[in-house]
Amino acid sequence: MTFDNVWFLSDYGLEDEFVGVVKAVIRAIAPHVTVGDVTHRIPPHDIRAGALALARSMQYLTLVPSVVLAVVDPGVGSSRRAVAVEAGGENGETAANVLVGPDNGLLASAVAMAGGARRAVSLTNDDYHLPAPGPTFAGRDIFAPAAAHLCAGVDLAELGEPVDPITLLPGVLPLSRQEEGAVVGEVLWVDRFGNVQLNVDPDDLLLMDDPLVISWGDKTRTAVRARSYSDLRPGQVGLITDSYGLVSVALDRRSAAEELRIGSGDAVTIKPAT
Amino acid sequence: MTFDNVWFLSDYGLEDEFVGVVKAVIRAIAPHVTVGDVTHRIPPHDIRAGALALARSMQYLTLVPSVVLAVVDPGVGSSRRAVAVEAGGENGETAANVLVGPDNGLLASAVAMAGGARRAVSLTNDDYHLPAPGPTFAGRDIFAPAAAHLCAGVDLAELGEPVDPITLLPGVLPLSRQEEGAVVGEVLWVDRFGNVQLNVDPDDLLLMDDPLVISWGDKTRTAVRARSYSDLRPGQVGLITDSYGLVSVALDRRSAAEELRIGSGDAVTIKPAT
Amino acid sequence: MTFDNVWFLSDYGLEDEFVGVVKAVIRAIAPHVTVGDVTHRIPPHDIRAGALALARSMQYLTLVPSVVLAVVDPGVGSSRRAVAVEAGGENGETAANVLVGPDNGLLASAVAMAGGARRAVSLTNDDYHLPAPGPTFAGRDIFAPAAAHLCAGVDLAELGEPVDPITLLPGVLPLSRQEEGAVVGEVLWVDRFGNVQLNVDPDDLLLMDDPLVISWGDKTRTAVRARSYSDLRPGQVGLITDSYGLVSVALDRRSAAEELRIGSGDAVTIKPAT
Repeated sequence: MTFDNVWFLSDYGLEDEFVGVVKAVIRAIAPHVTVGDVTHRIPPHDIRAGALALARSMQYLTLVPSVVLAVVDPGVGSSRRAVAVEAGGENGETAANVLVGPDNGLLASAVAMAGGARRAVSLTNDDYHLPAPGPTFAGRDIFAPAAAHLCAGVDLAELGEPVDPITLLPGVLPLSRQEEGAVVGEVLWVDRFGNVQLNVDPDDLLLMDDPLVISWGDKTRTAVRARSYSDLRPGQVGLITDSYGLVSVALDRRSAAEELRIGSGDAVTIKPAT
Repeated sequence: MTFDNVWFLSDYGLEDEFVGVVKAVIRAIAPHVTVGDVTHRIPPHDIRAGALALARSMQYLTLVPSVVLAVVDPGVGSSRRAVAVEAGGENGETAANVLVGPDNGLLASAVAMAGGARRAVSLTNDDYHLPAPGPTFAGRDIFAPAAAHLCAGVDLAELGEPVDPITLLPGVLPLSRQEEGAVVGEVLWVDRFGNVQLNVDPDDLLLMDDPLVISWGDKTRTAVRARSYSDLRPGQVGLITDSYGLVSVALDRRSAAEELRIGSGDAVTIKPAT
Repeated sequence: MTFDNVWFLSDYGLEDEFVGVVKAVIRAIAPHVTVGDVTHRIPPHDIRAGALALARSMQYLTLVPSVVLAVVDPGVGSSRRAVAVEAGGENGETAANVLVGPDNGLLASAVAMAGGARRAVSLTNDDYHLPAPGPTFAGRDIFAPAAAHLCAGVDLAELGEPVDPITLLPGVLPLSRQEEGAVVGEVLWVDRFGNVQLNVDPDDLLLMDDPLVISWGDKTRTAVRARSYSDLRPGQVGLITDSYGLVSVALDRRSAAEELRIGSGDAVTIKPAT
């Protein structure tokens, strides 16, 4: 089995040459591959943000069988494992995809979304590493070559020692809960337009009547459910089911995050106004 | 007719995974296509800036027949149409290109530069939409699939109901004017180097002698015409015909926008000093 | 000889459409080519930063024969030459690569790392330029077409007048020196994670015992050598051999540049504490 696509997410940013160098390594090993960028502007070392972006993207990245290369790796040089995880493809129903990255929780939700881990290896076989001029730069010397060799037809099992998928570090994505007629959730993500995605399913609000009250920190605002941004009056706070199927706090054409001073990780409570 | 190239401009930024997800959708439908980024750093919801960047790029993006995918879409969810517009290609003289995006003025100047609209459709045929987990994310679920299906050989007419090109929303690019021996224009664009592009043709200044006086807001500066940045003395304000053929206010190796505190949309008057 | 790869570095940024337009020009001339971005966020006009990023990347970009297109060009319009330089490939030992860009020192270190200049030309043959609507935009009208035509099989010699490689402007990368038992170096680069790369070889510190003292400006800190970031205690300043083989000043999971207020170009002295 070979792959034509590598999707690449990292916290490398675009100021430095890291992303370009990783692509050059892939190109040298597997010239037929197209490398697509998911994003490289995950905040440095922010595993949670990386895991969330990966989980949001996963169903699209795997529309065709792909290798997903994800590197947010604050523990590089420590004992965290470098892994490749084959996900999905059970019973030949869906094609398998492979995720390559550090075993630090970054990959876990994406693996689950891709059908769960079938096989995993620790990338210990240095026949498939790139020799480094100094200490190892894991993205360039271990992860990129692994992704590229998979694309070139090398079997996962060749890349290193087998790992029991049950031992892979689990993800860290928080769940919302019901509490005295309220839903208590958390801000997962603020997008570029200032929309505030919560870990709340629209169904959790089904039994509540509008208007609702949202609270976070020491602040409180009234909000209404709306089908789209343009249904909101100027300044009105809306709760919108976003294009990922989760509840978002939003304003029409303005940044809800900025105006309401609410950000990633904030705890949020939603309940009926009366 | 099929296409091998999609050029993609948006206000999605690169912090989030939007651009990557759109590319994944295109790749799944039309794997042979190369997607090139024009820019994704159009300020959020700034149709004017997007339209200008598109107009500046258009003659290069269409050096080979291409689909141009442009998304700056503050009115998503409102009644604005999602459209595909075939431009140029009249009498077989030049090959046709197709622009895909919201019908909100974003595409108008680019369509004109590409030879004018021949055919247009509203993207209403949901056989060519991507099913969404929540409400529609137009870029991912409507625009990207349309661009990709065009590349895969689907005819424009298949994508939805025909639209009379005359009903497409016109562009909003301002024209300069002559007024009592002066030229009154507007700042179209400040590039990364701080050069300030005006909507002024160099020919409009032909009858004026140097030095000239530029006024904007309550400020006034003397300027000279120069052939290139390096012809300017340190601190000297120059009027340079830029590489798009328009007049730019510039300093040598410094940002004219920052030093003169002048920005996009500012009205500017140019006249002879005496 | 033809090429399938162009690696592109510039100070164009990603706010404007410059990078996309350059790629469109290359695609029109050499549609088989994959253009990879090294980085476009070199600070505007910063030849030194561009030369350093290019030198760090070069051994990876040339894993397969490539054209390297590099544009940081404050002197555009002045008398600086636009050049293409063939490097390496001597005696058929390694394949040759070609660097295309301004002759202002930007390319020099990269040329050296790629095996030295074999042939060079000034890009004066306007048969291989793109006609411009206004004055020349060198990246779009001269450098991009040159890179693309090389990929399409045009020989270097066709692109313009031969240049004696000895006359190419040398690089400006500073060397460290030994001075009274200390090593005096300079900050080459601060990466996204705040690691501070010095122009110091780890071997230059071999005869010194830990702890060491680092001084810059009017500041002084004790530091220890470490194998990796994770070997450092919180707040401890480490000297780490980075993945390019040079000494970096680093903290574990924090930005050394920010915490120590040290930046690119700063002079740094390292000596034993006692």
